[in-house]
Amino acid sequence: MKPRIVVIGGGFGGLRAAKTLGRSGKIRITVLDKRNHHLFQPLLYQVATASLNPSDIAVPIRQVLAPYKDIHVHMETVTGLDLAGKAVITDSDRHPYDYLVLACGSTHSYFGHNEWENLAPGLKTVEQALEMRRRLLTALEQAEKEDDPKAQARLLTFVVIGGGPTGVELAGAVAELTLSILATEFRNIKHHTARVILLQGDDRLLPTFAPELSEKSKLALERKGVEVKLGRMAKEITPQGVRLEYEFIETSTVLWAAGVKPSPLNKLLGVPLDKQGRVVVDQDLSLPGHPEVFVIGDQAHFDTPHGPLPGLAAVATQQGPAAAKNILRDVAGKPRKPFRYVDKGTMAVIGRSFAVSEIRRLKISGFIAWLVWLFVHIMLLVGHRNRVIVLINWAWSYLTFNRGARLITMATWKETEPVIAPPQAGASGTAQAQAQVGQPAQPDGAAILKT
Amino acid sequence: MKPRIVVIGGGFGGLRAAKTLGRSGKIRITVLDKRNHHLFQPLLYQVATASLNPSDIAVPIRQVLAPYKDIHVHMETVTGLDLAGKAVITDSDRHPYDYLVLACGSTHSYFGHNEWENLAPGLKTVEQALEMRRRLLTALEQAEKEDDPKAQARLLTFVVIGGGPTGVELAGAVAELTLSILATEFRNIKHHTARVILLQGDDRLLPTFAPELSEKSKLALERKGVEVKLGRMAKEITPQGVRLEYEFIETSTVLWAAGVKPSPLNKLLGVPLDKQGRVVVDQDLSLPGHPEVFVIGDQAHFDTPHGPLPGLAAVATQQGPAAAKNILRDVAGKPRKPFRYVDKGTMAVIGRSFAVSEIRRLKISGFIAWLVWLFVHIMLLVGHRNRVIVLINWAWSYLTFNRGARLITMATWKETEPVIAPPQAGASGTAQAQAQVGQPAQPDGAAILKT
Repeated sequence: MKPRIVVIGGGFGGLRAAKTLGRSGKIRITVLDKRNHHLFQPLLYQVATASLNPSDIAVPIRQVLAPYKDIHVHMETVTGLDLAGKAVITDSDRHPYDYLVLACGSTHSYFGHNEWENLAPGLKTVEQALEMRRRLLTALEQAEKEDDPKAQARLLTFVVIGGGPTGVELAGAVAELTLSILATEFRNIKHHTARVILLQGDDRLLPTFAPELSEKSKLALERKGVEVKLGRMAKEITPQGVRLEYEFIETSTVLWAAGVKPSPLNKLLGVPLDKQGRVVVDQDLSLPGHPEVFVIGDQAHFDTPHGPLPGLAAVATQQGPAAAKNILRDVAGKPRKPFRYVDKGTMAVIGRSFAVSEIRRLKISGFIAWLVWLFVHIMLLVGHRNRVIVLINWAWSYLTFNRGARLITMATWKETEPVIAPPQAGASGTAQAQAQVGQPAQPDGAAILKT
Repeated sequence: MKPRIVVIGGGFGGLRAAKTLGRSGKIRITVLDKRNHHLFQPLLYQVATASLNPSDIAVPIRQVLAPYKDIHVHMETVTGLDLAGKAVITDSDRHPYDYLVLACGSTHSYFGHNEWENLAPGLKTVEQALEMRRRLLTALEQAEKEDDPKAQARLLTFVVIGGGPTGVELAGAVAELTLSILATEFRNIKHHTARVILLQGDDRLLPTFAPELSEKSKLALERKGVEVKLGRMAKEITPQGVRLEYEFIETSTVLWAAGVKPSPLNKLLGVPLDKQGRVVVDQDLSLPGHPEVFVIGDQAHFDTPHGPLPGLAAVATQQGPAAAKNILRDVAGKPRKPFRYVDKGTMAVIGRSFAVSEIRRLKISGFIAWLVWLFVHIMLLVGHRNRVIVLINWAWSYLTFNRGARLITMATWKETEPVIAPPQAGASGTAQAQAQVGQPAQPDGAAILKT
């Protein structure tokens, strides 16, 4: 009977692992993910800033794996792991396995302040990106209606927390979004009155890059109008704004790009975790004490002579096939091989035509780096259709300075029947303009629609 | 001082009215809409069946009206109308006017059964289309995991209620969606086991079209695998299915395309409404007794020798400029003109290569009609970018039999911290497969993740 492999997670690591296993034709594979799609996270900030649609950077997992008849894809949420009994427990089933690959990725960490999540959405999932987009676009709409300069300034202040690649890319895109459309489409907002502030706890941006690239990124962002504040950590986030050690920034939109933590499934494995919560794996990517269990990607802590590998898509993309091949070697009775990461470089983009890139010792920045970034990201996208669509979206955005996905969708889809109150005969007083949503004015003789 | 015009609604009627007014340069216009975007509703069923993205068929209202410097766009919800004092009251402001144009469109009617809304989403807004999409795709995912044939059959039964153009187009698209991807991407679902049922209360589909086109549409749908049930009205909708007079259809997905009713704002106008709730307007499109107020589109009942005009996009698209021109004539001291509708025909599409179209006495059907439908809809879309994107999406879907927007997005965006329960030492019993989402199994020695 064919060995059964369960792969948890359809991200970069899990998808590549499944494909490698599926090609072998010798095993039965079950892929589990609580979502139905694989997401190209590096471009999620473009969904958040209304340049791309979620489906431009996501593809259904079962569509990618459809050619492999040995692969079954189930949309389920894993609720438990039975390592002794070798089974995965989900919200609707129990999956026994001979080999298990954990590739659940990471989620956001608010450094112990979980109450900040509602005030500062992160950027790891499609839903979060759409929530960011909704808040950004709604803040602009509310600013358009706002007559009080102080309240308007608060609505037009956007704070991004976190100066790694995600925060840098997001801040640059937010600056472009606000500046590009404010110029032509709003009547009540003066040009260049939007403030985009990037808060970085470290003393430089992109701390994993070379210092000169950190400096160039900072300058590029400042040219776009972003205020970069280094060495500043958020002490508190409230509905009124963000409190730093020596100042309080009044803002109605805070975006979180600061901390990540690995999947909570790590806590169920009964093995030591590093201080970020990642599982320390052996050199063949397997779990100490459980050679049939592999942990890859952001969930794993893989040691190298230069220190543990970072939580990058590139790492997961290489570890997936490596773990898969070790499983296949096991099944064929051959010895496993240790994983060796090939560093193909990292890059970060700041807006329309500027990027920084570091490949081993080669550092490039500017327009050339941006072209490389474009090319690499297009090629890394899964699916030809998505590549074409994204190219067109980018071309259009580049040429028109506009963005193609500026939809505000409501949080709820139901249209509740409003309650009609009878006209207020004889009521006195003039109607007052209300700045708060949801407080209708009550003028004389007017019919009021209560929703 | 320039006259002030308030236009409520950024749909087909309101947008065209605003553009006509904006070109004149003699007046100040405020456009109010509770959403930020104009929506091309005829293609909404393609968002619901994962062929298109919301932003492919929607465009921000202020982007369309940006070239007209006299037009201010505010995203606000109208809560009241002060006809005597000539002002519109919203959730955040009060807008005095010299002229008012009401173009709020229509919403779904559940024939008095508002409790059906949660069980059977409609197709008037982006949010509703996305909810339909979520339910369709999730039903397939759950069917893939379902071992009980009866439960699986229920998950694979899809009921569309309403046999007008919306229902016909939706049923055809749902049939294509389920059949196209079931064939290649699912392992546990047999081909052609999905049932798509279209319920029509009348004795023929498309009752506003010629009878021969009704018959051709029915045959086209049946060729696609849709079961068309004529003369059947839904008596009750429950979570288990739909009850008709003589049968009960077990289904987990019911889609509503049956009844519409005009905007509830009509009730505030203090004038007679027709039995559908529409405002009976004068021949110049104005409100009886209030010549400065115009009502157009689905909100209005406009009499002609052939009966009142139907609630079609084409009607609103012509009434918008007509009302606007009457306002401009008033301002210039010229007499108003009565509105005359030019019937350019109607069409409905059934899937990949079949449509029916009726233009005056000319009736065409089949592939030619489908090409005409393609062309007309592309040209009617607002915005060149959307035209290109939709063309590409359609070309890809046509060539690959697949669909480009098959994303299931969760109802909520927050990632709540799960509570980890300690391993259940000594617990007995085997884990049971649970068909219901949210009921984790509790096996021996397994660590359980409670969310």
